[in-house]
Amino acid sequence: MMKAVVKIAPKDGATEIVDKPPPTPGPGDVVIKVKATGICGTDRHIWHWDPSVQFMQTPVTYGHEFCGHVAAFGKDVVDLKEGDYVSAEMHVVCGTCFQCRTGRGHICSRTKIYGLHHDGCFADYVKVPASNVLKLPGRITPRVGGFLDALGNATHTALAADLVGRKIAITGCGPIGAMAGAVCEFAGASELFLIDVSDQALKRSRNWAAMAGRRIPVTVIDTRGEGAAKALALIRERTGDGVDAVLEMSGAEPAINFALEIVRPGGQLCLLGLTSKKDVTIKDYSKNVVFKGVQLQAIIGRKMYGTWYSMLGMLEAGLDVEPIVTAEYDLTDFAQAMATFDRGETWKVVLYPEGKPAKGPTRAA
Amino acid sequence: MMKAVVKIAPKDGATEIVDKPPPTPGPGDVVIKVKATGICGTDRHIWHWDPSVQFMQTPVTYGHEFCGHVAAFGKDVVDLKEGDYVSAEMHVVCGTCFQCRTGRGHICSRTKIYGLHHDGCFADYVKVPASNVLKLPGRITPRVGGFLDALGNATHTALAADLVGRKIAITGCGPIGAMAGAVCEFAGASELFLIDVSDQALKRSRNWAAMAGRRIPVTVIDTRGEGAAKALALIRERTGDGVDAVLEMSGAEPAINFALEIVRPGGQLCLLGLTSKKDVTIKDYSKNVVFKGVQLQAIIGRKMYGTWYSMLGMLEAGLDVEPIVTAEYDLTDFAQAMATFDRGETWKVVLYPEGKPAKGPTRAA
Amino acid sequence: MMKAVVKIAPKDGATEIVDKPPPTPGPGDVVIKVKATGICGTDRHIWHWDPSVQFMQTPVTYGHEFCGHVAAFGKDVVDLKEGDYVSAEMHVVCGTCFQCRTGRGHICSRTKIYGLHHDGCFADYVKVPASNVLKLPGRITPRVGGFLDALGNATHTALAADLVGRKIAITGCGPIGAMAGAVCEFAGASELFLIDVSDQALKRSRNWAAMAGRRIPVTVIDTRGEGAAKALALIRERTGDGVDAVLEMSGAEPAINFALEIVRPGGQLCLLGLTSKKDVTIKDYSKNVVFKGVQLQAIIGRKMYGTWYSMLGMLEAGLDVEPIVTAEYDLTDFAQAMATFDRGETWKVVLYPEGKPAKGPTRAA
Amino acid sequence: MMKAVVKIAPKDGATEIVDKPPPTPGPGDVVIKVKATGICGTDRHIWHWDPSVQFMQTPVTYGHEFCGHVAAFGKDVVDLKEGDYVSAEMHVVCGTCFQCRTGRGHICSRTKIYGLHHDGCFADYVKVPASNVLKLPGRITPRVGGFLDALGNATHTALAADLVGRKIAITGCGPIGAMAGAVCEFAGASELFLIDVSDQALKRSRNWAAMAGRRIPVTVIDTRGEGAAKALALIRERTGDGVDAVLEMSGAEPAINFALEIVRPGGQLCLLGLTSKKDVTIKDYSKNVVFKGVQLQAIIGRKMYGTWYSMLGMLEAGLDVEPIVTAEYDLTDFAQAMATFDRGETWKVVLYPEGKPAKGPTRAA
Repeated sequence: MMKAVVKIAPKDGATEIVDKPPPTPGPGDVVIKVKATGICGTDRHIWHWDPSVQFMQTPVTYGHEFCGHVAAFGKDVVDLKEGDYVSAEMHVVCGTCFQCRTGRGHICSRTKIYGLHHDGCFADYVKVPASNVLKLPGRITPRVGGFLDALGNATHTALAADLVGRKIAITGCGPIGAMAGAVCEFAGASELFLIDVSDQALKRSRNWAAMAGRRIPVTVIDTRGEGAAKALALIRERTGDGVDAVLEMSGAEPAINFALEIVRPGGQLCLLGLTSKKDVTIKDYSKNVVFKGVQLQAIIGRKMYGTWYSMLGMLEAGLDVEPIVTAEYDLTDFAQAMATFDRGETWKVVLYPEGKPAKGPTRAA
Repeated sequence: MMKAVVKIAPKDGATEIVDKPPPTPGPGDVVIKVKATGICGTDRHIWHWDPSVQFMQTPVTYGHEFCGHVAAFGKDVVDLKEGDYVSAEMHVVCGTCFQCRTGRGHICSRTKIYGLHHDGCFADYVKVPASNVLKLPGRITPRVGGFLDALGNATHTALAADLVGRKIAITGCGPIGAMAGAVCEFAGASELFLIDVSDQALKRSRNWAAMAGRRIPVTVIDTRGEGAAKALALIRERTGDGVDAVLEMSGAEPAINFALEIVRPGGQLCLLGLTSKKDVTIKDYSKNVVFKGVQLQAIIGRKMYGTWYSMLGMLEAGLDVEPIVTAEYDLTDFAQAMATFDRGETWKVVLYPEGKPAKGPTRAA
Repeated sequence: MMKAVVKIAPKDGATEIVDKPPPTPGPGDVVIKVKATGICGTDRHIWHWDPSVQFMQTPVTYGHEFCGHVAAFGKDVVDLKEGDYVSAEMHVVCGTCFQCRTGRGHICSRTKIYGLHHDGCFADYVKVPASNVLKLPGRITPRVGGFLDALGNATHTALAADLVGRKIAITGCGPIGAMAGAVCEFAGASELFLIDVSDQALKRSRNWAAMAGRRIPVTVIDTRGEGAAKALALIRERTGDGVDAVLEMSGAEPAINFALEIVRPGGQLCLLGLTSKKDVTIKDYSKNVVFKGVQLQAIIGRKMYGTWYSMLGMLEAGLDVEPIVTAEYDLTDFAQAMATFDRGETWKVVLYPEGKPAKGPTRAA
Repeated sequence: MMKAVVKIAPKDGATEIVDKPPPTPGPGDVVIKVKATGICGTDRHIWHWDPSVQFMQTPVTYGHEFCGHVAAFGKDVVDLKEGDYVSAEMHVVCGTCFQCRTGRGHICSRTKIYGLHHDGCFADYVKVPASNVLKLPGRITPRVGGFLDALGNATHTALAADLVGRKIAITGCGPIGAMAGAVCEFAGASELFLIDVSDQALKRSRNWAAMAGRRIPVTVIDTRGEGAAKALALIRERTGDGVDAVLEMSGAEPAINFALEIVRPGGQLCLLGLTSKKDVTIKDYSKNVVFKGVQLQAIIGRKMYGTWYSMLGMLEAGLDVEPIVTAEYDLTDFAQAMATFDRGETWKVVLYPEGKPAKGPTRAA
């Protein structure tokens, strides 16, 4: 028997640590012993049974980002062996539609997400199709291997922009925004502007900006109230006609409009942020969109698997996202972990089925 | 002395046929005898002194698309000689900013438009910088040479999408929409949907769709009232998960939202249309933009001069846009031409300083 | 029992029409009743047991391009039903390597080709993995459906170049070169130069160039002896500083060097042609490659499956490659068909297991 | 009067320090007081009067990379003022041809190079067209500002490859190869292989690889004799199926063929290196080029001015190429500087018209 964190009923809370038999692999499946796994914003929606996740069928095990070691696999699986250190893309796609067959599997309309549609990885063991498993270089610590889906979102968003020698703004500095900042810095950007409207996010961003090892200027900006006008003036002063690209991580209408204000003509917005507000009003459409000649690129998931290879290559070469982990728990302390996360007191939270490491996260929030 | 159509005062109408001396070229300029010149939507704004053009200083000669023959040129001009058959890009850019120096001159923020900021081509002669002049292949008739700025907008928009073997929708079937349709067909699209909400535009589009020589299916769609739901059903039936790209020529909020409905996941919107409405509300932003993984590319002007070379190559190879000219006048009949255009009774109107050709437009509206 | 054309032993000839049981599908397989199938240059190498194919294990059924109807399929197959009109990509790839996982399956180093490594489609029935099957629009005739792998090579090569309004040369005018010409014309090229050194290929190319329906200028050029210098002069005259791209279909050293001569600075060579000569000497490397700033893009197979969708879209929209079929036979007349093909007397040869259609190919060679 | 290093006659040596009047600017020109200027391989060809430069008309002042301060400018010059810290692109292009008008000015066939066709910058003052002048951020030291044309070559070559998280090899580790290595590291590459066949270059490369601040693994490889086989085995072991891209800086036939061996299928070669050998034989063309699906991109000059903006952005953000300067001289010690460079005893040599700085190069060879 194994432990699993299970959403047991379609209502707020309703989550239990359950004992259940570990999964057994089908012919094309891999069963992985989970080493570390991250809490993501979607898990909070599941916890609260928000409208966006009410398509789910309970009971289902939470969790859609993790790393671990291969424990078992089916007869059709090649290129893997017991004990391999791996992670997995938890979006499982059909493989036969136009999108899947033209390198756009990340937008397959038949996508099933493990941890939402099927049992996920907040458990001792998780079962996934071999097609979705990726071997990890040993240099990647479990702490970081535990949230590669989130880092993959950040990587996909950042690499959609032209970064080398460019000035980049990020609107929305939750953990994924911070990861995107790290990717930009690693991949050759020349300057970063981190923008948010929450005291907690701004404080964490300032800590991150001040850390040893930052090689480029990072300016943290609060755009609440009169901050927006000051921010605009500051960015104009530093960039001339605006930033080269904005990574939009918030989904907030004011952030999207601010992004259109601060991007230079011909620049790019990469749109990852989702909004609970149904509609978004673009201000001054003719002036800020059309005449500016901008490009808006919506981002979903991770390119399967181009984003993964780029991300793993960067991590192998030293991309440092450990400071973005600001809380760690035993998996069985899920309720406490979720509560901390729910109060906005932390960036990334990592859970450990075998117990959290003696040494805590590299740097506190 | 020469004739010119001049906006003489900052108010509605206030346009006269004026006798004035022909321009003389500075060291880097070319003076061109105008053979044919097109009326564009912007000219209507000037006629009515709409807010969007009130930055203009009167008096100024109208006109920003034309063809003709080199009449004179300055001492620094190379590669041109008297009598050369030419047209010109009428956006004159600074050449020294980041945009100009990185192949994005079409979004230079110092752009001056001849026919708005400086005297234009509704005259016997027009003066332009040699940098902006392009030689025309003899196969291009003056009728078509007269509106290459507009055809360039259409070409820029259409070629921003991946067209080969693809299904394309166009929202807004004025003359530029129709030109974009012709470019799509020429450049390898497999099917076209032409969408509008005006009886006149729909009728002209149906005529165009039914013309001999159409090599691909063209469906004209009226999205007023219940038409939108039917159109959506029809496009789903014909395309599966939506069109590959939408060329948005209208700037209308309902059209932009309809475009986001009908485009397939991972598809593209090319946004040329301007709106007089300041703001545009995007419906279902998370679902229709982010989760769909779409790309929105704003289009302005013509790539200087990549768009021109692609356009001239297509025209030389037989791209047929003559049917989009549905009215022709002597230049001195400008008032009558503008009135016809203003009532929406015609697609492209071409004016001839030397008198309109004996034979009228190829096909009537 | 069914008929199949089988290479029975590792030596020249050694091919028989064999009676054998039709294949039965595994869980992920599809069995297709073959309607039409094309002879390709590789089949000639198999016939003669040339060094390039001596890795093959006999007996094996020939054939790697075809169309037909679904006759049976395994339990894991979705999206297909009996009677569906289909074709298949005959390169079967591993799906798990870096190439396969980043949209480059066509260069998977574990590729197995049906008709070489496994039984192919010169038979009444052929078995292929469902992953490789594509549904065909009804507008595609079996005559054309019979050689979509070859047309896919041509499409992959042509679409690797920027075509719209561009002047393109093709070196090597066998059937794939001719197909590439048709694709260029369909996808918006403005002028074609077809280059060869064989009387037969030149004659067929001239016939094709002269056919009704050509919408752009096509010049056929013999570069033997003094032809090369004349050709160079002609191309310079027609293009100024050279063609925009060359599709290199021959693999011949003189053709590759001629391509580098005639391409304009900054132009592109798309390299599909293979050579039996081990080494290729590039002349004037500094001048013709580096200083010219050219791009050489090697092409292999078909993008899986971007090339297929583009190709099917073009065929559905009217791309006409029927004239490139210049001989048709009953499948059981394979020996005669191969002999004709081997003597260079024909472009594409199509075989029909159910007997060739009463009406022969659209146009004779 | 000012000092200038002048090639006075068309033969080996024949170089003198000459007193001559400083240049005066035409209407569109800028005169710059030179602060630092680099010796490039082309200067050695001029010194020896090698065949590749015998088109030059003597006398002419050497030098085509430098930085300095604006001393004077013509009446048509905008955006510059006296004292501005600047550099200049020394390839002056026509501005009116197809290449110049489509963002490919770097391959304009009418290019004139200052320091070859016109007087260059080995002097107290140099005159250049304002179109070619770029302002430098203050963070760029004169030591580095003195060789931006060379660093631009390296940047153009490196950024032509996909670098983020990728493993890159560089064949030819002269100063430009080393600069390209620095760019790769800065812009997100995950591993570098530096390949050469000269003891001196290998030694300098090993020093560079061992420097503090290297964030990624750098392996220096000697491919002479049996080294090639060992190198191939090592690269296979480290990369699986080969490096993602090779930056070919040598122009040497064995290096080009080695590059084709070590690049992975679907990988890229960026070809900057020139060869004095007229022809280059590609081994195993079908296997190593076509079946591998590789792309070969020839590189010339710097994109005007996309490469410059990327380069300046990286330098502003901390790209460190100071260690590649391994010798510095007063401009008037040109003969001694050239002799040192000619013997291969140094990477980049920088000259100072006002006398070399008290502190020598950051790190010795």
